[in-house]
Amino acid sequence: MLINCAAYRDGVKLADLSVEEISDYLERKDCFIWVALRDTTDAEIEKMQEEFGLHDLAVEDARHGDQRPKIEEYGDTLFVVMHLVEIDGPELSVGEVSIFVGRNFVLSIRNRSKQNFLGVRARCEREPELLRLGSGFVFYALMDAVVDLYFPVIDDFESELESIEDHLFDKGEALANIAQLYELKSKVMLLRHAVVPLMEATGKLHGGRVPQVCSSTQEYFRDVYDHLVRINSTIDAMRDTISTAILVSQSTVSIEQNAINKQLAAWAAIFAIATVFTGIWGMNFKFMPELQWEYGYAVALLVIIAVCGMIYLYFKRSDWL
Amino acid sequence: MLINCAAYRDGVKLADLSVEEISDYLERKDCFIWVALRDTTDAEIEKMQEEFGLHDLAVEDARHGDQRPKIEEYGDTLFVVMHLVEIDGPELSVGEVSIFVGRNFVLSIRNRSKQNFLGVRARCEREPELLRLGSGFVFYALMDAVVDLYFPVIDDFESELESIEDHLFDKGEALANIAQLYELKSKVMLLRHAVVPLMEATGKLHGGRVPQVCSSTQEYFRDVYDHLVRINSTIDAMRDTISTAILVSQSTVSIEQNAINKQLAAWAAIFAIATVFTGIWGMNFKFMPELQWEYGYAVALLVIIAVCGMIYLYFKRSDWL
Amino acid sequence: MLINCAAYRDGVKLADLSVEEISDYLERKDCFIWVALRDTTDAEIEKMQEEFGLHDLAVEDARHGDQRPKIEEYGDTLFVVMHLVEIDGPELSVGEVSIFVGRNFVLSIRNRSKQNFLGVRARCEREPELLRLGSGFVFYALMDAVVDLYFPVIDDFESELESIEDHLFDKGEALANIAQLYELKSKVMLLRHAVVPLMEATGKLHGGRVPQVCSSTQEYFRDVYDHLVRINSTIDAMRDTISTAILVSQSTVSIEQNAINKQLAAWAAIFAIATVFTGIWGMNFKFMPELQWEYGYAVALLVIIAVCGMIYLYFKRSDWL
Amino acid sequence: MLINCAAYRDGVKLADLSVEEISDYLERKDCFIWVALRDTTDAEIEKMQEEFGLHDLAVEDARHGDQRPKIEEYGDTLFVVMHLVEIDGPELSVGEVSIFVGRNFVLSIRNRSKQNFLGVRARCEREPELLRLGSGFVFYALMDAVVDLYFPVIDDFESELESIEDHLFDKGEALANIAQLYELKSKVMLLRHAVVPLMEATGKLHGGRVPQVCSSTQEYFRDVYDHLVRINSTIDAMRDTISTAILVSQSTVSIEQNAINKQLAAWAAIFAIATVFTGIWGMNFKFMPELQWEYGYAVALLVIIAVCGMIYLYFKRSDWL
Amino acid sequence: MLINCAAYRDGVKLADLSVEEISDYLERKDCFIWVALRDTTDAEIEKMQEEFGLHDLAVEDARHGDQRPKIEEYGDTLFVVMHLVEIDGPELSVGEVSIFVGRNFVLSIRNRSKQNFLGVRARCEREPELLRLGSGFVFYALMDAVVDLYFPVIDDFESELESIEDHLFDKGEALANIAQLYELKSKVMLLRHAVVPLMEATGKLHGGRVPQVCSSTQEYFRDVYDHLVRINSTIDAMRDTISTAILVSQSTVSIEQNAINKQLAAWAAIFAIATVFTGIWGMNFKFMPELQWEYGYAVALLVIIAVCGMIYLYFKRSDWL
Repeated sequence: MLINCAAYRDGVKLADLSVEEISDYLERKDCFIWVALRDTTDAEIEKMQEEFGLHDLAVEDARHGDQRPKIEEYGDTLFVVMHLVEIDGPELSVGEVSIFVGRNFVLSIRNRSKQNFLGVRARCEREPELLRLGSGFVFYALMDAVVDLYFPVIDDFESELESIEDHLFDKGEALANIAQLYELKSKVMLLRHAVVPLMEATGKLHGGRVPQVCSSTQEYFRDVYDHLVRINSTIDAMRDTISTAILVSQSTVSIEQNAINKQLAAWAAIFAIATVFTGIWGMNFKFMPELQWEYGYAVALLVIIAVCGMIYLYFKRSDWL
Repeated sequence: MLINCAAYRDGVKLADLSVEEISDYLERKDCFIWVALRDTTDAEIEKMQEEFGLHDLAVEDARHGDQRPKIEEYGDTLFVVMHLVEIDGPELSVGEVSIFVGRNFVLSIRNRSKQNFLGVRARCEREPELLRLGSGFVFYALMDAVVDLYFPVIDDFESELESIEDHLFDKGEALANIAQLYELKSKVMLLRHAVVPLMEATGKLHGGRVPQVCSSTQEYFRDVYDHLVRINSTIDAMRDTISTAILVSQSTVSIEQNAINKQLAAWAAIFAIATVFTGIWGMNFKFMPELQWEYGYAVALLVIIAVCGMIYLYFKRSDWL
Repeated sequence: MLINCAAYRDGVKLADLSVEEISDYLERKDCFIWVALRDTTDAEIEKMQEEFGLHDLAVEDARHGDQRPKIEEYGDTLFVVMHLVEIDGPELSVGEVSIFVGRNFVLSIRNRSKQNFLGVRARCEREPELLRLGSGFVFYALMDAVVDLYFPVIDDFESELESIEDHLFDKGEALANIAQLYELKSKVMLLRHAVVPLMEATGKLHGGRVPQVCSSTQEYFRDVYDHLVRINSTIDAMRDTISTAILVSQSTVSIEQNAINKQLAAWAAIFAIATVFTGIWGMNFKFMPELQWEYGYAVALLVIIAVCGMIYLYFKRSDWL
Repeated sequence: MLINCAAYRDGVKLADLSVEEISDYLERKDCFIWVALRDTTDAEIEKMQEEFGLHDLAVEDARHGDQRPKIEEYGDTLFVVMHLVEIDGPELSVGEVSIFVGRNFVLSIRNRSKQNFLGVRARCEREPELLRLGSGFVFYALMDAVVDLYFPVIDDFESELESIEDHLFDKGEALANIAQLYELKSKVMLLRHAVVPLMEATGKLHGGRVPQVCSSTQEYFRDVYDHLVRINSTIDAMRDTISTAILVSQSTVSIEQNAINKQLAAWAAIFAIATVFTGIWGMNFKFMPELQWEYGYAVALLVIIAVCGMIYLYFKRSDWL
Repeated sequence: MLINCAAYRDGVKLADLSVEEISDYLERKDCFIWVALRDTTDAEIEKMQEEFGLHDLAVEDARHGDQRPKIEEYGDTLFVVMHLVEIDGPELSVGEVSIFVGRNFVLSIRNRSKQNFLGVRARCEREPELLRLGSGFVFYALMDAVVDLYFPVIDDFESELESIEDHLFDKGEALANIAQLYELKSKVMLLRHAVVPLMEATGKLHGGRVPQVCSSTQEYFRDVYDHLVRINSTIDAMRDTISTAILVSQSTVSIEQNAINKQLAAWAAIFAIATVFTGIWGMNFKFMPELQWEYGYAVALLVIIAVCGMIYLYFKRSDWL
């Protein structure tokens, strides 16, 4: 579905174009075209391939979806795939945006995502002195918008991790904690899948040999790269912390078990002693003088209670109960 | 066993050849030969070595089988080994395809696999403008076909993992889960064995110095490389997840044990108390007034039941039972 | 907030400047300006950007804060971010210092930190022969001061780790140890976050291609780099040790549990035997000769005590009790 | 001890030499000398050093033994150390072979190994067209022979691992499994010690800058390198699998323990209930009507058996027994 | 404290010098000076700095101590720090040696170590043909001596590890084993701290670009490098083995616990059955014919013993007892 299609000259919008006019404007040296599509049909993509002369393999990737993030050069044209990661309740939803960047055009195709980039276009149009840098700057602006979406996701992860950590040493929470940590780790891995390949690819857009189209905006790409490195190092730290937290949770289980075992042992001892006493006075020996005493029974009960009480206190003091 | 042997010119099949005609056509500059064998005998391979002038070491590897995936240059000729990984019930079966690619010939030898590449040949013959690129394109088409076979395998692994994850926190499933995870990990490692060396080798077929025969099809090999990188990163994520899942399974065992221990402790306490009560009234003291009461027995039973019931409720409320 | 603003020539202070005079002195070839700010407002930063002609992206990073440590080149100017890590009771507090280093100026902005760098300025002014090296040396002096602050932090970590290790094999300390190790690991990771990116960036300030501004002070930056490498290797060793220590703590839990289980088993055996004996003599058989003996009861008690005592000793000797 | 000493020209043996004749033949440009020693004395080595003009450091290493595998260049001469790994019952025995390869000589010294390389010499002499390649080919042949000895070792490891895996989930086998896995891991590490450094060194004998003496046999060394890479990747996979298997073994212990605990709990419950019943009817209340019934005892026994039986069945159905 | 100070020409000692004469001899082109100090005061170091013209930063490091091993170039002079690791009872003591190597001098400063290098000087003086190579050779000789000291340490570690392994599967040794493994790991890490940075630094003293002073002794430094690589790979293997051994120890704890639990369960069952029997015959039913039998008691005891015995045997055969 076509969202937007316009030609720009010197950082200022010339005109909104229909799809058919694209090829006319492409021939003009002084302007560039910015097209935005979403959830495209095969027919739309083929139309675009024709207008812009895109490479078969890239178009097939864009149509297919489900690519890992990457930046590929096909002659002068860059083909870029990025993941759109959004928090969707307790789940993560992962959309995809494919971008073709040529000397004088930018074509973005967004799939399976509720995010839109209208704000990016509006902001670019408000800064004509930057938009004048051409398609490379538009590419930067789109990439920056995508990467900015990762920050709230990682913040969300961090607060989720902190809330788990608050209960890490709570009794009886181990199973819930581990399940949540496992869940969180899966989500972190999803984000990592979006970030790491993009970071590696973006690292090639500044310094060293840089594709023509990005050469005048290198410092901007270094900034994006820097953001990705920051996100990545946070992700790595989280993975490490989650692993340790699972290990620690396991330990709390064992320790809790120890405490229960001690209680079990202590109560077993108390009852076992009471049983032995009643057993003794339940024996049928003929000559057991205390059985004849008037207050024998009361004394016996007191003795049992006293002994059990003493043992109870002993365990209490040893912290077993 | 010879499957197929044909000469092509300008992307169009010239003729099906007999083995003896190969050398005649090899001398012609304007065409290339594409031979497909499977489960070859030593004699067949020797015949081919003679016709195409293949290097001893490469031929020995092809005959021997059980190589790790690799791409080796012997002069102008590439020698390629790839693994064919197929799901065979609960097991993985691993076949092997060896490919010799020269300036004007492609020779593929498939061993221990039910897959065939007739579809590859048919598709190539339907696209003469691509087949015109020569033996390098045929090599790409074969490699692409092999790599495409890895996707259903990894999808299968992923759904197997998901189905294990669904039961990850189920009671009493830990042993089964762990056994399945261990099994799955072995299979993932088998696939990794097929993918990683091939990925490394394919990375040298585009960019930088590229073997002559692949130089006009670099973008295609980059595409294959990209697929392999994607599979590899999925494999790495799976390995990580499987390890964590085993760890988590271990935790559920401990946690379940805790629950059992608590129940054990609770019931032990209840019975122990009942035993103590019966023990007390079973003592043989002469003066135990309650023993003489008409409803003493009933009261005693009620007391025992009441006390045990109270303790039961207490444990119930503390979630021990 | 402006702390300090002065111009230097030949290693000697020329004059304290007001903000407005900065641009005048910047034009003079023979001196450099050193400005120190802290907890700046947006207005202050904008003013500075104007005076020194700083790059938009760098200024935005400085204003924003919460960057990872880095050293970036914008034309001739270096933009540097470092973390100030201070022990704040049981917590770590992490501040940030952003430094702009140009051919003839140094601008440092310190945020969220109680540390100040007045000492650095004083020391520099006492060593005019070094200060003569210009803005590169000031940059070194600041960096050296920041890195020197990491040493007491890591020493603190090490003594914390040692005090945990002293209790590592103590009974009943496992939970506390693990909680402390987990806490310590989080803090170590925070410091690592400050150190590793800075180390990587500093590695590019000596040997190979070095930014103009640092070229005459390379040996000093190698020294700083060396300190960072040392801190980093200590951090790595600590992480490794902490992980092992958590593992070991887990083991002590299991071992302690074994000991408790043995005691439980031993006492259970002793009481069970006593119960069986009393049960036997509590049976109602008509002909049980010992029941009629005058000292039968006493003998019975002695037998029970003797048998239980023997078992007790047996367990004692087997180290179960 | 001298095993063999001969001069070759054009791939054909000229003559068996005595040690004294070596220097005569070394001066001739058209032939090379192949000497094999084993378990040498210091005197023998010194004699050889003199004849071939070997470097002090290399000779000291050869005399000393206990080196890690390596390939070092001393001027035109290569000094090579390889480990001979043989299965010796349940143990691995590790011998060593040191090889000096010069432009026109090969000197091999074998220590602490029962393997011999007579077969290598015989095979070389049967293939004069390859032996004609000179000392580089002899070096390859020896290396190939050494590396070929690693394959049966790794096969042996794999079948040992498989036989452990067959018992991995067997009850009560955990300790034996873990001990065997630990043992196996030690042996794998020994083999890895032999393989990894040799692989790294061999990687420098083809492609890039290659020592003079190996330049005409590069493809052969690539083949050996390939074998070493294959062995190494198998070793890595085994290490990973062994670690996982130990982890899994640990899990089976916990799971088995759970099962035992459940049985323990179940039987404890059954006996405790029987005890409570007998306790009740053992109480001394005056008015307990059932005690007077003629079939009271039989009924009581039946009740006890019935109740215990029901509980038994309940546990049986819940899979606790 | 000055140990030794002498000038050498052509590998032969010219004269023992006083500190004041150093500068005179430094000016002569044909000789070099070798000074050895230990546990120096600040004054001594300053004196040396003056005589040899050493760089401030290097001198500060030497004075400060507590550096990580490194080799740094200051102009023509190398500054080297190495750790002296010695076994000191159950502990490791770590000393430090700093070496300055110039074109015509070597200055070594040894701190906190009982090792001395008199033997190195003596050996060098006995081999004038090597000492003729100059200060680079002396540097090699010192480094070789330091590295040689690591071998007995690692041998000691290995025999300690072996003696732990001998008890790895012993009952009740787990805690002691784990504590020893933890201790050993700490010591291994200390040695690793000494070895790894030195290895990395030494790798730059042969092949590629080599500091002037070492260029004629490259093969000797390669030999030292090789020793360090060997030590390092042994260390890595040990770390891996220790980790596995801790894991295995943990397993033995669990397995032992299983065994204890089984015994506990078995004895509990035996006593519980005896208790039930005595309970039955202790019931007060009026009509219990066996109570009236003359040998009822004896039969009852026999029945109890027989049943318990049978159960005992059953458990014995099932390997629970």
